[in-house]
Amino acid sequence: MEKILCGVDLGGTKLSLGLVYPDGRVLGKKTVYDHTAKSENEIVEYIADLVMQLLSENDLREADLEGIGVGFPGHIRYRDGYTITTSNLKGFKNYPLRDSLSSFFRVPVRLDNDANAQAYCELRFGAGRGYDDLIFLTISSGIGAGIILDRKIYRGMTGTAGEFGHTIVDPGSDYICTCGNRGCLMATACGLTLSQMFRKKSAEGIKSLLPFPEGSDFSQVDGRLLKEGLEAGDPLCMSVVTDCAGYIGIGIYNIFQVFNPPVIILGGGLMNLGDFYFDRIKSRFYELARDMIYDPIAIVRSEAEADAGMIGAAALLLE
Amino acid sequence: MEKILCGVDLGGTKLSLGLVYPDGRVLGKKTVYDHTAKSENEIVEYIADLVMQLLSENDLREADLEGIGVGFPGHIRYRDGYTITTSNLKGFKNYPLRDSLSSFFRVPVRLDNDANAQAYCELRFGAGRGYDDLIFLTISSGIGAGIILDRKIYRGMTGTAGEFGHTIVDPGSDYICTCGNRGCLMATACGLTLSQMFRKKSAEGIKSLLPFPEGSDFSQVDGRLLKEGLEAGDPLCMSVVTDCAGYIGIGIYNIFQVFNPPVIILGGGLMNLGDFYFDRIKSRFYELARDMIYDPIAIVRSEAEADAGMIGAAALLLE
Repeated sequence: MEKILCGVDLGGTKLSLGLVYPDGRVLGKKTVYDHTAKSENEIVEYIADLVMQLLSENDLREADLEGIGVGFPGHIRYRDGYTITTSNLKGFKNYPLRDSLSSFFRVPVRLDNDANAQAYCELRFGAGRGYDDLIFLTISSGIGAGIILDRKIYRGMTGTAGEFGHTIVDPGSDYICTCGNRGCLMATACGLTLSQMFRKKSAEGIKSLLPFPEGSDFSQVDGRLLKEGLEAGDPLCMSVVTDCAGYIGIGIYNIFQVFNPPVIILGGGLMNLGDFYFDRIKSRFYELARDMIYDPIAIVRSEAEADAGMIGAAALLLE
Repeated sequence: MEKILCGVDLGGTKLSLGLVYPDGRVLGKKTVYDHTAKSENEIVEYIADLVMQLLSENDLREADLEGIGVGFPGHIRYRDGYTITTSNLKGFKNYPLRDSLSSFFRVPVRLDNDANAQAYCELRFGAGRGYDDLIFLTISSGIGAGIILDRKIYRGMTGTAGEFGHTIVDPGSDYICTCGNRGCLMATACGLTLSQMFRKKSAEGIKSLLPFPEGSDFSQVDGRLLKEGLEAGDPLCMSVVTDCAGYIGIGIYNIFQVFNPPVIILGGGLMNLGDFYFDRIKSRFYELARDMIYDPIAIVRSEAEADAGMIGAAALLLE
């Protein structure tokens, strides 16, 4: 019998586990939200319990597994299987996550950054099928990315390669990233920036048609509200989305110049802003790239679904 | 007997050819400057003649060659061996350079971008010895670069990967690149920008101690003059060099975030500006990278000498 892959997507809000066939179909899954208050060791024990539960619910045993892949929302030291930092979970500073989880199992455990796992999921089962190389960017509250070269995840020396979100694209920008730097892509173009940018444009006199309460500081502005604004033709929402899309356009232009890849795949929550957003990303890209495109480059939406993190983590066993 | 490599560095000013041992030592070389007025086909024939002359001067025959490597100063389509564009030589738009030169020889001919060849030269014989991965940046009138991953040149889909010079690092910049875009690294930080930046800073009131003629438009400002200015403690020269170094610092920070490489090697004419320049590049980098450096990254000067282009072109046969 073909062995089953187990994928674990350890997020800052939810912890998803799944049993996945090598062709990407999901045999069974489990999602919990009560892991966030636990310590690192408790989370590892919790994951081990949940894996065993999931196996038994599906009449499987550990011996039926090919292994367990884990996607982690932060920097990892790949070779050692240590986490380095994360802004999504308590702790996990230099924590031996791979070996801690391994101690509960006899099958191999693989650990990688969650965006790397998602990028690999796109290669195997999503918009990257048929390509050997791709760059994946997930744009939500932050910006994550994965680089696939020759059908393998490119990780760099430590395992932290692909941090396009932290590349500086506008050193004179008004926006400062959580990393402390001014004008990196994450500071100018992700979910964390939306309310700041909205506030600034409002102060500059661009009017919004949306019904904000008197004296609002616009802290409630997020992707969902901007989408409503776009649908209502709100000029302030359109202006914010245009600016953010323009910076993403610069980001993918820079990726194009550096990697000369056949495809760039965009995913993450902000892609729900729809065509208005995606069209402006592409038009900024083509405005910059013009006659420097010698072979067609595809700029496409992610095809992976809600479970991409979990399926991608499972797919790490196939790499 | 060990075969000899032949390297051809086809530059916009000089054309250098050399016979190179596989350990990087040069057996014999030839440099000419009268190729620039010729057509593509005439240049190819000229190169073929010069290779035969060089062989005969060294008592060798074509059969003693492992092959011929050519470094081209512009974009190439690697798989086809076509040149795409160059701003350093007349013509060479979609020109089959590799096969044209091949028609004169029985040994293999390899064609690559000149900065890729130099990067590979660093890996084999220069500051990149002992590494498997490196990024090489050459900063002179323009900015070229080469990416080495797992001891191989990373070329991307077409063969144009590694164009860090064209990545946008300041979209609101006053400086426009020859590519037409505003604020790419090449627009803000290479030889072509120096006189513009000098003029702008002079107009803003920064005084130079250098003896410019009355009403000078500072078009004579280049790397050599800036170096004299630095040595004389000239505030305007120091200001220009500091700004350019700062942008290179941003460029290598972006490279660090994307590639997480063990080493970045800097070469090219502007590195002759010396420690004042190199120190400011590094300090801007470390200011941005701070606590995000998890494994040591070396930022070092190129060790390849004047013949790096030619030796690197020869080394393409070893890849």
